[in-house]
Amino acid sequence: MSRLELDVVARVRGGRAEATDDDWGTVEAEIVLDPAFPVSALAGLDQFSHALIVFHFDMIDPEAIVVGARRPRGRADWPEVGIFAQRGSPRPNRLGVTTVEILGVEGGVVRVRGLDAIDGTPVVDIKPVMSGFEPRGVLREPDWAREIMKDYW
Amino acid sequence: MSRLELDVVARVRGGRAEATDDDWGTVEAEIVLDPAFPVSALAGLDQFSHALIVFHFDMIDPEAIVVGARRPRGRADWPEVGIFAQRGSPRPNRLGVTTVEILGVEGGVVRVRGLDAIDGTPVVDIKPVMSGFEPRGVLREPDWAREIMKDYW
Repeated sequence: MSRLELDVVARVRGGRAEATDDDWGTVEAEIVLDPAFPVSALAGLDQFSHALIVFHFDMIDPEAIVVGARRPRGRADWPEVGIFAQRGSPRPNRLGVTTVEILGVEGGVVRVRGLDAIDGTPVVDIKPVMSGFEPRGVLREPDWAREIMKDYW
Repeated sequence: MSRLELDVVARVRGGRAEATDDDWGTVEAEIVLDPAFPVSALAGLDQFSHALIVFHFDMIDPEAIVVGARRPRGRADWPEVGIFAQRGSPRPNRLGVTTVEILGVEGGVVRVRGLDAIDGTPVVDIKPVMSGFEPRGVLREPDWAREIMKDYW
């Protein structure tokens, strides 16, 4: 496999100190831009209600990464599905992509709500959520995918 | 800035040979899993209508990367906004995140529609689109963000 190198452009500050499965919806945290970037990199982000945060689950043990299939959360009543057909963190490259609410932008800091990444998590990209990038057409998903999100936020 | 290394888990095959601004909606392409992964890594992905593809804009010249602000597409009638407040490709880490329609999954290949990444593009993650990960609350965005997407798909 070929590889590529990314910069950690920001880090999560605050929010949860440890990852738990559910109730992320009210968690507030800050995303602190690396000082290598000018504050202008965030200019206009406050015109958007939501942002997409691409981050690295760096606390996941690389040895725990699943490359084939597993039952989400190990639940016996859910089917065994491929790691690329679920959102679990012990995945190749350990990347998370989450839509958060933007509470405010001040200098090099973005305050957000609903980020399911813990204090200190490395961030590799921040993108505004644009309606034009939302799914086109009707969403279809299996039952387990709806059940697993029931208490997530 | 600290750095991290990612594996290229798949590559885009087919679709456009060169990037153009608009009309990506009907473009069909394949995402070919690296043979280092078992085919089971994609098991159950066909139960979802849409997937999120995280890819690397590797044809963007690193010298062209914007770290501060710019006008999207250089349009004089749109405001200068930070690179993290727009979705343009010449961005730090050159990551793209796009929601595509899943047309089919066969072995280690996912056929998709609406992927705005060209033939050969390295892919670093594939995630199912789950309704529970959609934006919570009302989306707000500036006018330019709606205009830029007018002919995109």
